[in-house]
Amino acid sequence: MIYITETQSAAIVTPELAFDAMRAAFIAALSPGAASFPVVLGHGSDPQNRFTVKSAAGADLAGLKVGAYFPTNDARGLPRHASTILLIDQSSGRIGALVEGSAANCYRTAAADAVATDALARSDAQVLTLFGTGHQAAYEARAIARIRKLRRVLVVGRDATRTADFVAQLRQSGLPAEAEAAEPAVRAADMIVTATTATAPLFNPEWVQAGTHISSMGSDATGKQELPPALFNRASLFCDLPEQSTRIGEFQHAPEATPTAIGAVLKGDAPGRRDESEITVFDSSGISIQDLHMAQAILQAFQKAAAAD
Amino acid sequence: MIYITETQSAAIVTPELAFDAMRAAFIAALSPGAASFPVVLGHGSDPQNRFTVKSAAGADLAGLKVGAYFPTNDARGLPRHASTILLIDQSSGRIGALVEGSAANCYRTAAADAVATDALARSDAQVLTLFGTGHQAAYEARAIARIRKLRRVLVVGRDATRTADFVAQLRQSGLPAEAEAAEPAVRAADMIVTATTATAPLFNPEWVQAGTHISSMGSDATGKQELPPALFNRASLFCDLPEQSTRIGEFQHAPEATPTAIGAVLKGDAPGRRDESEITVFDSSGISIQDLHMAQAILQAFQKAAAAD
Repeated sequence: MIYITETQSAAIVTPELAFDAMRAAFIAALSPGAASFPVVLGHGSDPQNRFTVKSAAGADLAGLKVGAYFPTNDARGLPRHASTILLIDQSSGRIGALVEGSAANCYRTAAADAVATDALARSDAQVLTLFGTGHQAAYEARAIARIRKLRRVLVVGRDATRTADFVAQLRQSGLPAEAEAAEPAVRAADMIVTATTATAPLFNPEWVQAGTHISSMGSDATGKQELPPALFNRASLFCDLPEQSTRIGEFQHAPEATPTAIGAVLKGDAPGRRDESEITVFDSSGISIQDLHMAQAILQAFQKAAAAD
Repeated sequence: MIYITETQSAAIVTPELAFDAMRAAFIAALSPGAASFPVVLGHGSDPQNRFTVKSAAGADLAGLKVGAYFPTNDARGLPRHASTILLIDQSSGRIGALVEGSAANCYRTAAADAVATDALARSDAQVLTLFGTGHQAAYEARAIARIRKLRRVLVVGRDATRTADFVAQLRQSGLPAEAEAAEPAVRAADMIVTATTATAPLFNPEWVQAGTHISSMGSDATGKQELPPALFNRASLFCDLPEQSTRIGEFQHAPEATPTAIGAVLKGDAPGRRDESEITVFDSSGISIQDLHMAQAILQAFQKAAAAD
């Protein structure tokens, strides 16, 4: 088994690697025989510490991610989240590789939104509105900055101090960020990314202008919600995996919605944006095959670097 | 993360280590807060290659086992089964240890039966009847030989050639084995161990003599069956985990059965065998916390050996 530590994988992963891996994953999710298996919701010895096991198979790989969420880590100054991916060697059934991928997981989720936004946003989109000021939101902003030249990044947060700190952090990394209230931020947006833990819509659907693209990443469980369902009637709807997105993603709140898998757009099997005035919505609920493709890309880069040594 | 390879774990594991770990696991399974999470039934890129993910939490550990069953390995001369156990560090949420444990898994299952047989069989039991001639059956015979002085080991197999080979193999390892037909073997038995993939009872309940102990290890899925349910009316019933044993273990075929968790007997909270003439039955459906205790025992032995170096 090849063991890639957190330090090693964090040194290998780049937004480019993650972008390419997510593109491949979205296409692989639609290949014949691709399967996502039921998610395990487990807990530790202390039941407030939780872990999930998400597993999948694709045309040439299978495996699982163990994602831990340990709130008791706060008291020890450790991060709450930890992600580890196992790839099962398809020629032996043994674990072929273990990749510690906590940093990689942040790049993965942001890159998934970037792939979808790149496919669906107008090519001249230059104003990004970002809901959320958490750890993941910064990855989202940087991933979008790779695929469109951003003139403004409007940050909408619930807490003014936290939002100011977050804006300063983005500006330090070279992004033209500023804090803004929800309504003007949505009205000014060419692209909207929501990266929150919200359980109710973050904005009024009437504020959304023609031609806007929206990527929602926060909804991955029953009860979570970031977008106003009334918006869906005048938008084209996309997601990572329709059966999951309509069950635990944003479209759980729109029983009539029939979103298109983004992989079909990437493959050219389904239309994406049809004109400059269309509103497009992408929901990322997060699928296991993304994790397997991230681990495989990290593994390949690791092996390439090792061979070059 | 501490990574213990198959070679290392196979060199560390002994019947003694496995016996002590299984004893601890059966008791831990009853501790407040112990939990087994739903089993994932997954498959590889080739759907005939399958894997399971079995996870659990106990008072001081949590984690999971990935068990692969790859029939396509036959063509490559590789074993069909592979087991890997992950222990989640309860103070960080990260994977604390990965133990490749394919050999360990065979010791684990045999030791579980040995712990239960040791607790339930008569102290003067000396004739073991073994149904099954597969890889696991040999581990079962050797594990029982540790806890009772065996005068005879009667092997019941479906195929005469295979049974003869298996008997020769047991004799080579010092066990007084001989092939026998089902009826005389059951009538002569003080202890019966069934280690088959049967889906129907292996013997007639009337053949079982007073004072016999029976351990069934083959039933771990819907439809599997080794024992005649009519036997249960005149026997005391035990198992590893009642809610699982009555769902996918031997007691799926006896809806009225209320088996006692063997951990309660080991702790002294429930009676085991009450007299010399009682028939006792133990069903092992296999629980995840056994895997975690095996991995922990191997990890501790590994660390002790490393410290001594």
